[in-house]
Amino acid sequence: MSDNQPAKVGVIMGSDSDWPTMKEACNILEEFDIPYEKKVVSAHRTPDMMANYGKEARSRGIRVIIAGAGGAAHLPGMTAAHTTLPVIGVPVKTSTLSGIDSLYSIVQMPPGVPVATVAIGKAGNAGLLAVRMLSMDDSRLAEKLRQYHQDMAEASKAKTKNLT
Amino acid sequence: MSDNQPAKVGVIMGSDSDWPTMKEACNILEEFDIPYEKKVVSAHRTPDMMANYGKEARSRGIRVIIAGAGGAAHLPGMTAAHTTLPVIGVPVKTSTLSGIDSLYSIVQMPPGVPVATVAIGKAGNAGLLAVRMLSMDDSRLAEKLRQYHQDMAEASKAKTKNLT
Amino acid sequence: MSDNQPAKVGVIMGSDSDWPTMKEACNILEEFDIPYEKKVVSAHRTPDMMANYGKEARSRGIRVIIAGAGGAAHLPGMTAAHTTLPVIGVPVKTSTLSGIDSLYSIVQMPPGVPVATVAIGKAGNAGLLAVRMLSMDDSRLAEKLRQYHQDMAEASKAKTKNLT
Amino acid sequence: MSDNQPAKVGVIMGSDSDWPTMKEACNILEEFDIPYEKKVVSAHRTPDMMANYGKEARSRGIRVIIAGAGGAAHLPGMTAAHTTLPVIGVPVKTSTLSGIDSLYSIVQMPPGVPVATVAIGKAGNAGLLAVRMLSMDDSRLAEKLRQYHQDMAEASKAKTKNLT
Amino acid sequence: MSDNQPAKVGVIMGSDSDWPTMKEACNILEEFDIPYEKKVVSAHRTPDMMANYGKEARSRGIRVIIAGAGGAAHLPGMTAAHTTLPVIGVPVKTSTLSGIDSLYSIVQMPPGVPVATVAIGKAGNAGLLAVRMLSMDDSRLAEKLRQYHQDMAEASKAKTKNLT
Amino acid sequence: MSDNQPAKVGVIMGSDSDWPTMKEACNILEEFDIPYEKKVVSAHRTPDMMANYGKEARSRGIRVIIAGAGGAAHLPGMTAAHTTLPVIGVPVKTSTLSGIDSLYSIVQMPPGVPVATVAIGKAGNAGLLAVRMLSMDDSRLAEKLRQYHQDMAEASKAKTKNLT
Amino acid sequence: MSDNQPAKVGVIMGSDSDWPTMKEACNILEEFDIPYEKKVVSAHRTPDMMANYGKEARSRGIRVIIAGAGGAAHLPGMTAAHTTLPVIGVPVKTSTLSGIDSLYSIVQMPPGVPVATVAIGKAGNAGLLAVRMLSMDDSRLAEKLRQYHQDMAEASKAKTKNLT
Amino acid sequence: MSDNQPAKVGVIMGSDSDWPTMKEACNILEEFDIPYEKKVVSAHRTPDMMANYGKEARSRGIRVIIAGAGGAAHLPGMTAAHTTLPVIGVPVKTSTLSGIDSLYSIVQMPPGVPVATVAIGKAGNAGLLAVRMLSMDDSRLAEKLRQYHQDMAEASKAKTKNLT
Repeated sequence: MSDNQPAKVGVIMGSDSDWPTMKEACNILEEFDIPYEKKVVSAHRTPDMMANYGKEARSRGIRVIIAGAGGAAHLPGMTAAHTTLPVIGVPVKTSTLSGIDSLYSIVQMPPGVPVATVAIGKAGNAGLLAVRMLSMDDSRLAEKLRQYHQDMAEASKAKTKNLT
Repeated sequence: MSDNQPAKVGVIMGSDSDWPTMKEACNILEEFDIPYEKKVVSAHRTPDMMANYGKEARSRGIRVIIAGAGGAAHLPGMTAAHTTLPVIGVPVKTSTLSGIDSLYSIVQMPPGVPVATVAIGKAGNAGLLAVRMLSMDDSRLAEKLRQYHQDMAEASKAKTKNLT
Repeated sequence: MSDNQPAKVGVIMGSDSDWPTMKEACNILEEFDIPYEKKVVSAHRTPDMMANYGKEARSRGIRVIIAGAGGAAHLPGMTAAHTTLPVIGVPVKTSTLSGIDSLYSIVQMPPGVPVATVAIGKAGNAGLLAVRMLSMDDSRLAEKLRQYHQDMAEASKAKTKNLT
Repeated sequence: MSDNQPAKVGVIMGSDSDWPTMKEACNILEEFDIPYEKKVVSAHRTPDMMANYGKEARSRGIRVIIAGAGGAAHLPGMTAAHTTLPVIGVPVKTSTLSGIDSLYSIVQMPPGVPVATVAIGKAGNAGLLAVRMLSMDDSRLAEKLRQYHQDMAEASKAKTKNLT
Repeated sequence: MSDNQPAKVGVIMGSDSDWPTMKEACNILEEFDIPYEKKVVSAHRTPDMMANYGKEARSRGIRVIIAGAGGAAHLPGMTAAHTTLPVIGVPVKTSTLSGIDSLYSIVQMPPGVPVATVAIGKAGNAGLLAVRMLSMDDSRLAEKLRQYHQDMAEASKAKTKNLT
Repeated sequence: MSDNQPAKVGVIMGSDSDWPTMKEACNILEEFDIPYEKKVVSAHRTPDMMANYGKEARSRGIRVIIAGAGGAAHLPGMTAAHTTLPVIGVPVKTSTLSGIDSLYSIVQMPPGVPVATVAIGKAGNAGLLAVRMLSMDDSRLAEKLRQYHQDMAEASKAKTKNLT
Repeated sequence: MSDNQPAKVGVIMGSDSDWPTMKEACNILEEFDIPYEKKVVSAHRTPDMMANYGKEARSRGIRVIIAGAGGAAHLPGMTAAHTTLPVIGVPVKTSTLSGIDSLYSIVQMPPGVPVATVAIGKAGNAGLLAVRMLSMDDSRLAEKLRQYHQDMAEASKAKTKNLT
Repeated sequence: MSDNQPAKVGVIMGSDSDWPTMKEACNILEEFDIPYEKKVVSAHRTPDMMANYGKEARSRGIRVIIAGAGGAAHLPGMTAAHTTLPVIGVPVKTSTLSGIDSLYSIVQMPPGVPVATVAIGKAGNAGLLAVRMLSMDDSRLAEKLRQYHQDMAEASKAKTKNLT
């Protein structure tokens, strides 16, 4: 990520304890040279900051928001209520319910306000989903994604030799 | 409820489709002569109104908030983030997940912001829980509750004759 | 949808039995004047057609794919494996497991291939998520979405009068 | 907690194995200078003592009961059956079902006898819920809670710097 | 059931709404000529009556207690806490969680106080389990059970002709 | 099915109430001209007949057994314990747990004795799985299956016209 | 246990890997001086031995059978199909599904053949349930149980001092 | 396995991380001298290779395919869509949902395309199921299986001596 470019993706999470999960999203964004910002924003402890984050995101140049949270994970859905940008939700695994609670709290949004939910704990895929969205009208990024898939295929094929 | 008294309990819900569930809470409050107000407040569709509702509740004289919602039920938890009053959450039954999603979204709150959760769809018990809270330093209301329990016991005992 | 415009959104589903669910996505797209196409594409019964659909979507002008399926719902994930466009998955409710099986099959994608999953049976939200994606660099569409949210807020506020 | 003051909150639990979970409730009560008592009370092994605890709590000056239990967690609900005070239930995590059994046994109370249920293992939130209840007509405690929320917000905001 | 004989089995349930389920237990007991009694006993609404029922059962001649309840189904476990007789628990199906809550609340008893749990809603099997217990040292009843199994086998074998 | 040919597939079920589900397996077998037999065999009510059915199946010419059962569905696994033929298990949907209990009871077999489990209530697929097994060294049947798949593909493609 | 007395309780389990769980049942039986036997009996690996065990148990003097098994846990239910004695089922915890599969496979028995199911992994309670059954007409054993409960109560009360 | 013989069983898996689970299938095949091949084939990362694997399997001499995958486990079902051979699916245990997601994604296949699903993580049973299928018309292999069961029974019976 070039620090000179304004962030196109905002990566937010409810607590710094979510960072080991969420940094995979940032790794992907860096791999694709997408400028991004990262921030702890808690729906329950800093609700006004959360509301403002959503309201100002588009005008600040953000194009996609990735929000991770666990348990009664309200951050993705509430941020989506305050913006019209696409919001990707990452259900963070929890110690008691393994992230089922996070998943239901994020994915089961009511009519009108969607959250693009990815697998429990799979923030890397949230990063890739953001890249896919940014590639919609960006042929250079689309080509990078195509190459990324080709590399994955090669890496996958090479793994048969490890079956010993 | 005497309309002349300021509301002590605020009963809010995400949509008017929650009303058949939530009116049981109001019925209980009326039975105990507790002044209350009722309102549709959607965490996702009217997030600013929701925030204001929470922020202003105490100063308006509200003492307990009962909030019902279904699915990714963010209303109780987000309201609790905006007030220091006790918030009672009612998980409304959903057509797909039977209210398990509502229950997890409401009860699994993170450290710092609790929601007093009752059984799925049991808004009457939310009303009774509000009455118990209001009775903490109100011996008249405590006596009413004691009588209510005694009546329940009598009614329960009388049911054996129906086992035919 | 103007029939003269090439489709920007592809709405696919595993069977015509998914149509009552999936047509809500189409209704939203029409409401926002987004040109779209709709098609039955089965991952299991027409796997080659499914693969081709994914492979050719971008070059045909498609920008987002919405895929609905139930049970072992492989359509969204497999389509995502064949394209670099964002794919939105709609878990269709099933008669035995209420769509939990659909949800897990769609959302729990492995690293490398994300699916943007929405709530069980909530295809309307899939449509709105597609609109959000298309609005990322389209200020006219962003404004339409803003208005849509404002209308939702007004409609929500008006519902309190129904609580009788 | 001043030892000279009579307890306002009773913290009970089914076994001393619940103490590592339940002491978080006591920590919160001490932080807010709420006098409390703590006791092992088993619904199944000391049912009569449990019944008496519930029956005598109000007259002894208790205003809120916090009850933690795991598995077939009958303690909160049975205590609630013997008192008209608000009872807060803490579902203790179990080794087999992760506390789902505790949660269902505590939250799914029948009409007439509510238990204010908090998240699995989150006894600290039970403590905060008790404080909220005690603050209903206590402006000094309400102010302390407001300050507590403000401190949480500051602490949360400071965590962004840890995302490295 | 001969009304002249003192009851050997006590069939209790939390509410008369459990009767359609629980009467199957009574039907079985009548089929095996086991004297029984039936009664509505609510753990939450009549906790003292419930305690007394458990405490006095053995001395009144009861040999097995069958207890049915739904939701946070505390009746079987609490009755078992007040007696040393075997208690059979019947998880009654619930409208929200299909009786999973009842099952967990009944079967997941802590060390020291067991409940003999049967399938959700299968009170007939609770009756048969009581008969098995009563047959332990009663060769006449054991022979009746053997005949009952033989009749079931014959009836089962005859069903192949219905596969058309 | 030609009645002159000895049965190659044995379709058994725990009760005639499973027949509406299980007849779909028979329909498939008839469509592929596979001789089969059908029988009510209960693991719990006719355990000896069940054991004998498994023990004698191979010598009677049976090549695959399809067994359907619901709840604590022991029939497929126990039959598999008495034979070395492949046994296909069909979890029948139940009124309380929707067949999750049937699924777990059938699929979670211990090391040594596998059951080939299909989807809840999908006996037609059990029939098709039996046909696949019989086609392993039967090129004529393999060709019939290939045609069946081609017909499915055509039928699936034709369904797009119903999306109106 | 006096080795001179014929066993009154048969403790069986599907594998010796269940022994760490099941020995708690034996410990309880020894504590109450109940003669018992223990044996590995696998429903799937030794189905005929299992059938014979059930068939011969009553005539050998066995009065209660305790059967533990995990996964598709057919041992308790199948043993119950071969005897008219009460069979107590212990769902052994599994590494994948935590014993939910064991619980459903054991408790969800069809009409006609009940299994007295205890909590996942709680074989000690299976032992106590057997003692309760044996105490039905044995006042000496009933008195021992009463004393056991009193001791539990004392031990429970003494635990409050550990809450530090 | 003789390396000179063409493979009769194809063992495929989504990643080499599945190998610790899947090698149990290979161990069984070697024990029964069944020629097999093993390969990493990812439905999502190498979808075309997966399709080709399915399409060419029968003509290459493969008679059964064993496919293991975790999470949104599409490999078994998609392979089954590309072949008419029997496909055995092994749900690999996942870190978040313990393999429930894998199980549902594999077993809940729609009408027309079955997958023979075995227990979560039990690839050894997948191997044995393949052997059963291959034994259908192979009396030598059937005899080997019979001997295998007899050995299991002996080993099981010998385990009683370990209950100490």
